[in-house]
Amino acid sequence: MKRVTILGATGSVGSSTLDLVERDPERFEVLALTANGDAQKLAAAAIRTNARLAVVADESRLPELRERLAGTGIACAGGADAVCEAARMGADWTMAAIVGIAGLKPVMAALECGGTVALANKESLVSAGTVMTAAARAHGTALLPVDSEHNAVFQCLDRTAPRSVRRIILTASGGPFRETPIEAMRAITPAQAVAHPNWSMGAKISVDSATMMNKGLELIEALHLFPVRPDQLDVLVHRQSVIHSMVEYVDGSVLAQLGSPDMRIPVAHTLAWPERMETPCERLDLVAIGRLDFAAPDLERFPALGLARAALEAGGARPAILNAANEVAVAAFLSGGLNFLEIAAIVADTLARYDPAAPESLDAVLAIDAEARRIAGERVKDCVS
Amino acid sequence: MKRVTILGATGSVGSSTLDLVERDPERFEVLALTANGDAQKLAAAAIRTNARLAVVADESRLPELRERLAGTGIACAGGADAVCEAARMGADWTMAAIVGIAGLKPVMAALECGGTVALANKESLVSAGTVMTAAARAHGTALLPVDSEHNAVFQCLDRTAPRSVRRIILTASGGPFRETPIEAMRAITPAQAVAHPNWSMGAKISVDSATMMNKGLELIEALHLFPVRPDQLDVLVHRQSVIHSMVEYVDGSVLAQLGSPDMRIPVAHTLAWPERMETPCERLDLVAIGRLDFAAPDLERFPALGLARAALEAGGARPAILNAANEVAVAAFLSGGLNFLEIAAIVADTLARYDPAAPESLDAVLAIDAEARRIAGERVKDCVS
Repeated sequence: MKRVTILGATGSVGSSTLDLVERDPERFEVLALTANGDAQKLAAAAIRTNARLAVVADESRLPELRERLAGTGIACAGGADAVCEAARMGADWTMAAIVGIAGLKPVMAALECGGTVALANKESLVSAGTVMTAAARAHGTALLPVDSEHNAVFQCLDRTAPRSVRRIILTASGGPFRETPIEAMRAITPAQAVAHPNWSMGAKISVDSATMMNKGLELIEALHLFPVRPDQLDVLVHRQSVIHSMVEYVDGSVLAQLGSPDMRIPVAHTLAWPERMETPCERLDLVAIGRLDFAAPDLERFPALGLARAALEAGGARPAILNAANEVAVAAFLSGGLNFLEIAAIVADTLARYDPAAPESLDAVLAIDAEARRIAGERVKDCVS
Repeated sequence: MKRVTILGATGSVGSSTLDLVERDPERFEVLALTANGDAQKLAAAAIRTNARLAVVADESRLPELRERLAGTGIACAGGADAVCEAARMGADWTMAAIVGIAGLKPVMAALECGGTVALANKESLVSAGTVMTAAARAHGTALLPVDSEHNAVFQCLDRTAPRSVRRIILTASGGPFRETPIEAMRAITPAQAVAHPNWSMGAKISVDSATMMNKGLELIEALHLFPVRPDQLDVLVHRQSVIHSMVEYVDGSVLAQLGSPDMRIPVAHTLAWPERMETPCERLDLVAIGRLDFAAPDLERFPALGLARAALEAGGARPAILNAANEVAVAAFLSGGLNFLEIAAIVADTLARYDPAAPESLDAVLAIDAEARRIAGERVKDCVS
């Protein structure tokens, strides 16, 4: 029996994980499920999986959760600290799928408990990658990537010869505005930006995909996850999202992982690793797909990618500022106050105004994150007013 | 120092191997080089690499070889037995690149000596796969595939979870006549058939690629090399030959190996395995390539593929007969006596006329091979007259 905890159980990746875990109750035992605020969905999942504990981060939803779980024997709790406590229950495998920097403390709690942490929260790794990977090493925790791109790279990495990697190539669909002229980008609506052509994902990551900031954040993630330098990381536009990423070796071989656009595939890979488990995912049919296309990314129409590349190369506090400003700007875009092109402009402006020393602790990361959010928030107000 | 022997040093794969070995004289020491008849090319290679022994299979060329090596201190010999003796010199790594069934005895000699045997001779594995893999197991010899397709599969096989393979997908360029109407195929000339669109290869394998018998032989090879059943082996037409083959896993992940069409890449993979070595091969540029296409194979225009699939599924002596008849028919096509469509017809006819029991020894394989050649030779005479 593998004891499983899911941090962020009601989101897109959390639901994919639940689907797999629920298919094999003989193999997986659920310790804790956490959610931000959806007490109804959380309670239903906890009951279906007979979880020991359900935690809602938004304490105002705890009464509803308690009511829904009354008589089930499932414990419940509320608040950010309770989420971290759930992460510390000693699961064999933890899915870290809380979106945004809110996931950082719970992920750190899980990393300090050994076992395996499957990481779907890219923002935490972008902001605090050095701190997180150090914690994983110190506690013997296996940190496995769930993002389809990084999971693909992980699958393609030849564990016998890590130093023979020449280059990691992250593929990018290019998002829904891959071919939108720059003049038309100002008028893009949140509804258009959230409609990703290939993947069904949450709103925040869908907007990041539309600006290509998502791919930029992934470059930074890759630097923390894999033994490469920034100049060994490349982005390739591949609109069908069939090849999820690639590794080029010094001998000229390129290994790639392909699959249907179903997050259950990378989740299952981390859930069964180092073995593999069957999934009910649609099988890849390249005859039906017919062709795969490739192109270089357009840095002019997608300036977020260039900003992320610069932050990747500079290191230190730059990735944390990039990420914080982006979260603020995306939220402002989704709530209707900011236009699409202003997202990258806010990020650039925040990076230009704030340049602290490299953070060396989790608290330092969180302080930089808070200050970057404050600055970005002011810039947002300037744009909106 | 890795001690290297190259069986078939003057052919296409042999030359690729020499190129890699000669680039790193500090790392590789050449024991023996063998060739069929090109004494001039063989002597030059032996001198460049300071080989200990050079062997020419065609004894009539031994005097020329001896003369060319006079005063160099390099030993020389001639005849088929001398080739086998060269294979038994105890190299750490042996390239088995003799074309056709002529390579079987030398390969078996190398397999009985331990170390690593890099196999580029597909006909031996097709005809005598069971005998060969048993010999490799018995002597602790690592048998590594050099064919770009099988090398790709080998690179994609997750060594931690071999039972989680769902399917092996061999890619096929479709050859130069991928889109040729069946009515026009009768008139195909040897010169047209030898001009492969993607790879520079020997004449025999180029014709096999044009009839797609090559892919059929590769299906049979794959059955011997990898832990799968016949129904787990598929062929996918991919005209650019960029993806060299793929492995589909039970979780829905598909791993693929891609690269430029340069045989030095798979040769280098086997030469450095389990590490990797740098090669000067052109790097894969997917932006420049732009697109990759996929289609199902057309069994009507390429009946050789169906014949091979049937032999794969039936097993026993069928693959050896298929291979022997094909070698005879291809030779007759190349010498101008047979038309293109008659190649598969001769193979089908030979399979229909000869159905012995499964061979259990090398001698039994060779006897079946000889009889199949005799029958195919008679059918060729009928066609030509």
